[in-house]
Amino acid sequence: MMNSLEKQPRTIEPQSHEAREQTRQHVDQLTKPLGSLGRLEDLAVELAGMTGDPFPVVTPPGVIVFAADHGVSVEGVSAYPQEVTAQMVINLVHGGAGINVFARQIGALQKVVDVGVAVPVNAPGVCSKRIRAASGNILREAAMSEEEAKRSIAVGMEAAEAIINEGAKVLIVGEVGIGNTTASSAILSALTGADPDEIVGRGTGLDDAGWKHKKAVVREALALHRPDADKPLEVLSKVGGLEIGAMAGAILGAAQNRVPVLLDGFIATVAALLAVKIDAGVTDYLIAGHRSQEPGHAFVLQALGKEPLLDLHLRLGEGSGAALAFPIIEAASRMVKEMATFASAGVSDR
Amino acid sequence: MMNSLEKQPRTIEPQSHEAREQTRQHVDQLTKPLGSLGRLEDLAVELAGMTGDPFPVVTPPGVIVFAADHGVSVEGVSAYPQEVTAQMVINLVHGGAGINVFARQIGALQKVVDVGVAVPVNAPGVCSKRIRAASGNILREAAMSEEEAKRSIAVGMEAAEAIINEGAKVLIVGEVGIGNTTASSAILSALTGADPDEIVGRGTGLDDAGWKHKKAVVREALALHRPDADKPLEVLSKVGGLEIGAMAGAILGAAQNRVPVLLDGFIATVAALLAVKIDAGVTDYLIAGHRSQEPGHAFVLQALGKEPLLDLHLRLGEGSGAALAFPIIEAASRMVKEMATFASAGVSDR
Repeated sequence: MMNSLEKQPRTIEPQSHEAREQTRQHVDQLTKPLGSLGRLEDLAVELAGMTGDPFPVVTPPGVIVFAADHGVSVEGVSAYPQEVTAQMVINLVHGGAGINVFARQIGALQKVVDVGVAVPVNAPGVCSKRIRAASGNILREAAMSEEEAKRSIAVGMEAAEAIINEGAKVLIVGEVGIGNTTASSAILSALTGADPDEIVGRGTGLDDAGWKHKKAVVREALALHRPDADKPLEVLSKVGGLEIGAMAGAILGAAQNRVPVLLDGFIATVAALLAVKIDAGVTDYLIAGHRSQEPGHAFVLQALGKEPLLDLHLRLGEGSGAALAFPIIEAASRMVKEMATFASAGVSDR
Repeated sequence: MMNSLEKQPRTIEPQSHEAREQTRQHVDQLTKPLGSLGRLEDLAVELAGMTGDPFPVVTPPGVIVFAADHGVSVEGVSAYPQEVTAQMVINLVHGGAGINVFARQIGALQKVVDVGVAVPVNAPGVCSKRIRAASGNILREAAMSEEEAKRSIAVGMEAAEAIINEGAKVLIVGEVGIGNTTASSAILSALTGADPDEIVGRGTGLDDAGWKHKKAVVREALALHRPDADKPLEVLSKVGGLEIGAMAGAILGAAQNRVPVLLDGFIATVAALLAVKIDAGVTDYLIAGHRSQEPGHAFVLQALGKEPLLDLHLRLGEGSGAALAFPIIEAASRMVKEMATFASAGVSDR
């Protein structure tokens, strides 16, 4: 695996053409006008192709939240202090965060993984897979070594495999990490050449001056490191974040196991782009959950060629937007399995 | 009640300003950046205002599907024959229709009410509240008498009250009725002055010639009857449909009981516009579930000033789009009740 990361091959199995066709034909027999369930019908076909099962099972989903701190947070790029990352990890294992509420609603398996919070969080329920204590300040140094970048991906991959072994049929990855929209913006600019002015947003709620400053920080970090757009591990190590690497690894792990990935907002989708740059086959396993308010999100969704299911003006992260979109995935699966056909119900097909 | 229908007063209690404010303040204390749950936050405030409860309960929802036939279906305005209405009623009580699947997913109470299928459907589970056997062909005669229009509204109102008494906390109304997008288009044109060319759609799947013909049928029916835009009962009786009247009545009944109404597609939203024309206070209790592919739907949503939650290119009806949107309503309610506050979780509020 580690070697293949540098060669950027396509090792992941493509969607099953046969399962897609079986599902498409079945959907056209259901008691409804042709095509009248719109995107639900397309989703059913996609899920069939991903899983190889014409009657795809999607429950329970699994939600993994990766937590890490960012050295760049000392540069005043967030509306909140770094301590909030650790406080939110506690909140997550106590079940009080937004993602906990929405994960319970959809009956999801939940994991919280510390991959590099500044100060270790020793609370029951936190899975400790710390790579280092916070990433480096990308304005002065690399976020992490390439070795640490590889480890972050491996940790994410293992977490995905663990939750899949526990029964998760769809993967949602989320994050907490004060400063991580700055790192995500830098990764996105590095991978695509996008101008930071176009994609850097207000994150958790910066004012105009803070927003302007954040754009300058991203631009300066990129000028300092000049990461090679064709080397995703280099980009991750120079301007990335530990939880972002872990999310990319988890997405790779899900795709390798033919488990659909339901994407959350800006940070998760940038992690997905990293994963796609590592193995182009990942694209086949991605479903965009929602379009967030962060301006870079629409940009990265377009880069991935994905149309989001929801647009509810969300910008919380944690996996919350994906969890809110999950019932649509479940409905697509139930449609295929539970709706009557024209023949079985004795309804005239015109 | 019957008299008040003609006076078009505003008798329905407005939203509770106090409950809205309490919820708004509570939402701002939850462990998330201010405003970061976007439309979910607005929904929570709306639900509080509607129910008068700052911690609004929305489960279980109730789904009522009203079925009726349309005399105008002999004019070739639908891709399906009239028999499909009765066949779909059977499918509905057997649980094989799209709305059944999505209603089960959200744990909804379900009712199927025959208000005027051409031939009575005698199947267990069908609630028979027949007003007449199909409406009249609006190209030649009135859809129904004003007395029948009043009865359709009363039947809908009673059905809403019954399901609310059984525990429904949010109401979804759906329909089956071959020809009912033609009647809905005529009602919408009559109430708003909209040009049929702008709002008539392909319904269940007309080809270009059928679509053009359907627009002509709507235009001719309006020219024949010239219903008064300020008299919703006259509009309903001249160019409406029995299930559309019942839906309007059910929406009125929910609003009178301060139960939020989650709107489905074109037909349900036209019924809501009728209800609003009968009592302007209904507007306070409407939430738009989705935007359908039927072109008139965007028009009537705009007339009501409502922004839909979903846009999944649906055009099935039956209440299906509203049922698919319900998990977002549930998430808004759970957010208020289950998320930790900054104080309770010990998270720094900046």
